Amino acid sequence: MKLYTYPNSANAFKALVAAELGGVAGEIEVPAFNMGVDNRTPSFLRLNPHGKVPTLELEDGTGVFESNAIARYVARVSTKGALLGASPRTYACVEQWLDFAQNEVQAPLASWLYPLLGFRPYDKAREDKAKAQLKKALLVLEKVLAGTPFLAGEGLTLADVVLCCGSLPGWLKLFDAEYRADLPKLTAYVQRCYAMPEFAKHVGNVQLCDKALTK
Amino acid sequence: MKLYTYPNSANAFKALVAAELGGVAGEIEVPAFNMGVDNRTPSFLRLNPHGKVPTLELEDGTGVFESNAIARYVARVSTKGALLGASPRTYACVEQWLDFAQNEVQAPLASWLYPLLGFRPYDKAREDKAKAQLKKALLVLEKVLAGTPFLAGEGLTLADVVLCCGSLPGWLKLFDAEYRADLPKLTAYVQRCYAMPEFAKHVGNVQLCDKALTK
Repeated sequence: MKLYTYPNSANAFKALVAAELGGVAGEIEVPAFNMGVDNRTPSFLRLNPHGKVPTLELEDGTGVFESNAIARYVARVSTKGALLGASPRTYACVEQWLDFAQNEVQAPLASWLYPLLGFRPYDKAREDKAKAQLKKALLVLEKVLAGTPFLAGEGLTLADVVLCCGSLPGWLKLFDAEYRADLPKLTAYVQRCYAMPEFAKHVGNVQLCDKALTK
Repeated sequence: MKLYTYPNSANAFKALVAAELGGVAGEIEVPAFNMGVDNRTPSFLRLNPHGKVPTLELEDGTGVFESNAIARYVARVSTKGALLGASPRTYACVEQWLDFAQNEVQAPLASWLYPLLGFRPYDKAREDKAKAQLKKALLVLEKVLAGTPFLAGEGLTLADVVLCCGSLPGWLKLFDAEYRADLPKLTAYVQRCYAMPEFAKHVGNVQLCDKALTK
């Protein structure tokens, strides 16, 4: 499999960490990729007509896009671990948190962070709304993690991989000590995950945000 | 299973139509639900600490939330059809379109529609951006549907269910003849899906938008 991405993409980390945990890291090649050029070629657009990364190319030339779908595929072809849960009920729980991580965490995180990085116009009211929406979601996770070591129960699953990788830019750039004050369990949990060798190999040595990025 | 939702929720239709197609419609009960009241009770918050609908309650009392995760669970326990595809490769394709439907179609659709319904503040620049982002995604689908009857190939899958149900408010309220002009194949495809009895039972007799909602 080939994973096309720019370097240090939180969305690409999802598949890369899943592959480490699932015993299939050796099957994923990450070719050099020049974003803005290589994602506009006819051969890339055959893999992903939307021209976005990460995009996975399977051995038979099939393209798979959407970072969570790529991570799910990697989990499904894994040779160890139970990244998708061991029963339909646990699987449902994993899938619930996968979508929650995308819709309730990563989406408002992008609304908060991207304008500060210059990717979108800045608007104070929208920033405040995104911060509040994100905090509400993170407090849900804080509550859940009071009763269980990982999102879907006793074992680490793809839900943890996707949440921790997808929220990484927040922990690095936005969630300072004040923001984290009411999130002690969630903070300890992401630190525990980031410290696992399968995460650390890709996300590096994560230092939680000292001073939040502002306008 | 009990599906908690307000009436005519596009997100709840995903699970209800999947259940019709999967032969498990008789197993889903939709209790009367008073949104704003019933979703704030302690018993509901045990099912979904985020207090949102749709939320599915399994027979053992487990709560499952996020509409695509609910639809996936229903597809997984279905007794007929191949809603999730018949191979890991097709499954990856289904999952890619499930996330694309959420992130690239439903999210910008909400950014366009919700302010017009009074759910969010109106901002012309944001509306224009959402419309352009959505059209770009719909044109990707138009291109794909030039080569295949359904998103993941010859057979209808959960990807079609989720895309058609999730985008329904757009076809009803926003996508007028002018907007649809460069989307003939996508338009014919959604009409074909909505006309299937398993869809029609829930979405009703869909009349495509005549005059788009505006500010």
